[in-house]
Amino acid sequence: MVESVLNAGDTAWILISTVLVLLMCIPGIALFYGGLAKRKNVLNTMFLSFIAFAIGAIIWVTYGYQFAFGADIGGLIGNPSIHFLLQGLDPTQLLGAGTDSVSPFPEILFIAFQLTFASLTVALISGAVVGRMKFSAWIIFVIAWISLVYIPICHWVWGGGFLSSLGDLLGGSFAGLGALDFAGGTVVHISSGVSALALALLLGRRKDTSLLPHNLGISAIGAGFLFFGWLGFNGGSALAADGLASSAVLVTIISAAAASIVWNIIEVVKGEKPTFLGSISGIVAGLVGITPAAGFVDVGGAIIIGAIASVVSFVALSYLKPKLGYDDALDVFGIHGMSGIWGAIATGIFAVTLVGGVPGLIEGSWAQVIIQIISVIVTIVYAFIVTIIIGKIIDLVIGLRVTEHNEVEGLDTSLHEESGYRL
Amino acid sequence: MVESVLNAGDTAWILISTVLVLLMCIPGIALFYGGLAKRKNVLNTMFLSFIAFAIGAIIWVTYGYQFAFGADIGGLIGNPSIHFLLQGLDPTQLLGAGTDSVSPFPEILFIAFQLTFASLTVALISGAVVGRMKFSAWIIFVIAWISLVYIPICHWVWGGGFLSSLGDLLGGSFAGLGALDFAGGTVVHISSGVSALALALLLGRRKDTSLLPHNLGISAIGAGFLFFGWLGFNGGSALAADGLASSAVLVTIISAAAASIVWNIIEVVKGEKPTFLGSISGIVAGLVGITPAAGFVDVGGAIIIGAIASVVSFVALSYLKPKLGYDDALDVFGIHGMSGIWGAIATGIFAVTLVGGVPGLIEGSWAQVIIQIISVIVTIVYAFIVTIIIGKIIDLVIGLRVTEHNEVEGLDTSLHEESGYRL
Amino acid sequence: MVESVLNAGDTAWILISTVLVLLMCIPGIALFYGGLAKRKNVLNTMFLSFIAFAIGAIIWVTYGYQFAFGADIGGLIGNPSIHFLLQGLDPTQLLGAGTDSVSPFPEILFIAFQLTFASLTVALISGAVVGRMKFSAWIIFVIAWISLVYIPICHWVWGGGFLSSLGDLLGGSFAGLGALDFAGGTVVHISSGVSALALALLLGRRKDTSLLPHNLGISAIGAGFLFFGWLGFNGGSALAADGLASSAVLVTIISAAAASIVWNIIEVVKGEKPTFLGSISGIVAGLVGITPAAGFVDVGGAIIIGAIASVVSFVALSYLKPKLGYDDALDVFGIHGMSGIWGAIATGIFAVTLVGGVPGLIEGSWAQVIIQIISVIVTIVYAFIVTIIIGKIIDLVIGLRVTEHNEVEGLDTSLHEESGYRL
Repeated sequence: MVESVLNAGDTAWILISTVLVLLMCIPGIALFYGGLAKRKNVLNTMFLSFIAFAIGAIIWVTYGYQFAFGADIGGLIGNPSIHFLLQGLDPTQLLGAGTDSVSPFPEILFIAFQLTFASLTVALISGAVVGRMKFSAWIIFVIAWISLVYIPICHWVWGGGFLSSLGDLLGGSFAGLGALDFAGGTVVHISSGVSALALALLLGRRKDTSLLPHNLGISAIGAGFLFFGWLGFNGGSALAADGLASSAVLVTIISAAAASIVWNIIEVVKGEKPTFLGSISGIVAGLVGITPAAGFVDVGGAIIIGAIASVVSFVALSYLKPKLGYDDALDVFGIHGMSGIWGAIATGIFAVTLVGGVPGLIEGSWAQVIIQIISVIVTIVYAFIVTIIIGKIIDLVIGLRVTEHNEVEGLDTSLHEESGYRL
Repeated sequence: MVESVLNAGDTAWILISTVLVLLMCIPGIALFYGGLAKRKNVLNTMFLSFIAFAIGAIIWVTYGYQFAFGADIGGLIGNPSIHFLLQGLDPTQLLGAGTDSVSPFPEILFIAFQLTFASLTVALISGAVVGRMKFSAWIIFVIAWISLVYIPICHWVWGGGFLSSLGDLLGGSFAGLGALDFAGGTVVHISSGVSALALALLLGRRKDTSLLPHNLGISAIGAGFLFFGWLGFNGGSALAADGLASSAVLVTIISAAAASIVWNIIEVVKGEKPTFLGSISGIVAGLVGITPAAGFVDVGGAIIIGAIASVVSFVALSYLKPKLGYDDALDVFGIHGMSGIWGAIATGIFAVTLVGGVPGLIEGSWAQVIIQIISVIVTIVYAFIVTIIIGKIIDLVIGLRVTEHNEVEGLDTSLHEESGYRL
Repeated sequence: MVESVLNAGDTAWILISTVLVLLMCIPGIALFYGGLAKRKNVLNTMFLSFIAFAIGAIIWVTYGYQFAFGADIGGLIGNPSIHFLLQGLDPTQLLGAGTDSVSPFPEILFIAFQLTFASLTVALISGAVVGRMKFSAWIIFVIAWISLVYIPICHWVWGGGFLSSLGDLLGGSFAGLGALDFAGGTVVHISSGVSALALALLLGRRKDTSLLPHNLGISAIGAGFLFFGWLGFNGGSALAADGLASSAVLVTIISAAAASIVWNIIEVVKGEKPTFLGSISGIVAGLVGITPAAGFVDVGGAIIIGAIASVVSFVALSYLKPKLGYDDALDVFGIHGMSGIWGAIATGIFAVTLVGGVPGLIEGSWAQVIIQIISVIVTIVYAFIVTIIIGKIIDLVIGLRVTEHNEVEGLDTSLHEESGYRL
């Protein structure tokens, strides 16, 4: 057992460097989306991610962490024990100090680690709304969404809320089980993907709904940043420098690789040409799919999870979206939502005891899959409804959508008086 | 106390990985500046950073580290004990071996860590001179500036020179105090910002002084690299994987986020549109502002430091620069100089004992602010005068400025026979 | 000795974070090549790297690691003890568990670490073939090349094969010596560089053989990623957070810096203008040159190795290539092959006992240089011949080269129905 040779200090450092790495996901998603957007909207698209990060970071230290990770109240929300703005928090205080489960790293470090999740999650939603949302409406949405959607779901799954002990609520053979979400399948990807769909429905369709990326090189750079940051998310979530973290990093790479190849194979099977856009879309789908499962499955499971993530997301993009007619511009629901749902369920299917100590369906246990499905449904329903309510209120008060004139002109010049490129 | 569970090996590794991270600031600043520059100067602009890094790195191992960190001579400069080119240095020799304050990591690691600071600092200056400086003059300037400006100031503040024990020189209630500069407020940002102003004054104005970034996507990538690398600077400067490093990382993120938001708010308050350029400029201003303070202030202090950094830098760009008429092309003085000055003073204001063990003005102690102000003045005066002398000599001998013909044509084709973009 | 204060856990973590860092080399090489390619081929060029990574990753966990690092059979190949797809591998099992040389980190971590080397190496080759190779032929080539070239050479040098104990085969004063390759001089750079030459010869020349980079900003971003990732390769290869890793990082930076400066000097000496392309080409040449030597030489050696790497590669590009007439489009042989050969031999020349415990020619020992030269020759001959055979078979079965029509049109639209840039 490698754990026996590890010590607590490593744990502090794995998290410090993980925070640095994670932060790369913010420019990562900005660039990934920016390259996919139209040239006239590239700055606005990147701006949505950057401002979401900035607002999310401030909220997180002001009251977000306090409510998400405070002592559980009725399974629903945390009871803030740390002060507003972390006032008076000793940087050397260990997480869980004074309790039975003290962690070998400072609480302030865990706050920074979780900050990056919160900031990134809301930034992900922006891909659905590019090209037509008011900047002021986006800012208000970000504040409301983190407060009313992200923080509760984060508490339910990671902060000791009811989904983390769902098995005890159900009782019987479920006792002792809870929703498994290693690095953010429900908390990050389902919540953002479903909310992206809700917001896209409220906003309505763009005048021009084509997906013709204006600069795939920029998206490739974003994909590079994202991949790097994602290994931080999935490896760092082991909260230790051990075999589990190592395994999480490896299966994350493998799932992304498998999904990337499979996306291209689907294109070819359909009689199309293999595309670079498909390749990087597959990478992201594979990363999303493995995220909840990274600490529970082995390499074989990772290949299947990645492969099916591409199938699921491809189907959503190619059939579901045109059929249902929603305009999720950069396919946040199609990729994060659908592969997130698949990954959360797949965690219950492919979990192997050897890796994470939890048996999945392939080892004959049905209980975990049921728990996973319930968690997925709860997350979908809650995120969708609350996002609709938030969006509707913003729409009634200040309006969600830019004028048609601004949309046609492009948001960079009309909203920001800037342009992405100049001779 | 988390320190109790840490061990020396972590310290070695935090620095190794920090060096990797830090190095990203070099392409970071190259890209940030490159995107802001005109299309016809993009390669020259990036080239100035890359060559500065290369020259700085070689100087640092040849004689730079030796003079900056050798045993102090009269408070002014170090006495080299390590040989030229580090000849004979045992890679396993610990920093401070044989003294009372031996560090738990090898000296060669500390040399690499400090190398990145030296290389980056001179690269920062290049933003002031883009579009009009001779390439040969820049190369000579880099060599002279690192040798005559950076190395002495680095010694004064970090290498045991007179600013590090300024309180003892002043005596009385100042005894025991020294200039606080956690990760380079005076050493990196004030020195480079003020020198950028000096060099811009010597060079004179460009023919076309507009700031119309040719590719803000490239600058966004640069900002991403810079943010990442900066967390390495500020977190790594704790020289340990502990609560202080964690706190430094968190307050760095928060200051940048606050500054970014405030820059946009200023724009809106002024009746302008919020811009993406403002957002990333705010991020850099916030990073600069928190740099000297990162190990001394809490989250509340970080928000104020970041917010005011944007105000200070915005005022410099919008009022000071047009009024005084200097052509600091990419606002190195406005952002690094001004926010650096603010941050260095703010360190004395917002320091809280709980974080770094030093009380600031908000805890009722005036002494540290006075020390900070003196250090800032010393750095400004020294950097400005020596840069003027260096620049003047270069101007007299080979000339600083390209011909008008080359400037109008653009430096990429005229100086390098290359172009940034081709069909 | 810093080693005395280190512990095993650090070793686990240095490798985990190294894997993250290393992975950045994949988008790094994609972007570096993408920017150098013609605009009409930018997506295809990046795609070649991405798909190589994805295929390489899957192969590595399926059977690659098993054959490369299994118990040695006759010096030639490993005998797989770990199952197909790593089935049943306990993530906490230490590398070398049950043997005398157990390592303080899990084997699954070492598998991930080595995965990045394998994936990157084959991606490097793609630079030689841009603009004219069939996508399907590339995919088959990648599978065959990793299996038949990379895995055997990796085993010979790092997996306990005959090159690692070459001195014992030769006997006499060579006894106990083996090929030194700290981070991939023979395994990565000579193998890929020589194979790139072979494949370029088989493919024939492009219709338009000019090297006119379409977007050097993209290449600068790639160079940034590569530099960062390379420090992971060279520092991580110490497999510990100690003085050796620190030294490896420092000499890597210094070699790249020296090579970059020297490349520009050569241009000036030849009467040309210093170019940014030369600067980043020099950085890569310097990184390649120091790679095998990073754990064996000191700073003085690193400067010489880097400087001569630029000379060697410059000569290859400017004289050898036009003279011999091969069309190695982005100079993979010229930079990786030639500087790799130089670096591997230079390791035997400049090794100093103080750093890596091995004396080189400058300390009076001829034996190591002989070993290095033999290893280089073996690698060149094997990689060249097997690549020719693989390429020839693919050519006969499905053809290596696209139609002239597709080549002239550009591969992005003709092979992928995409374009890199849109208005």
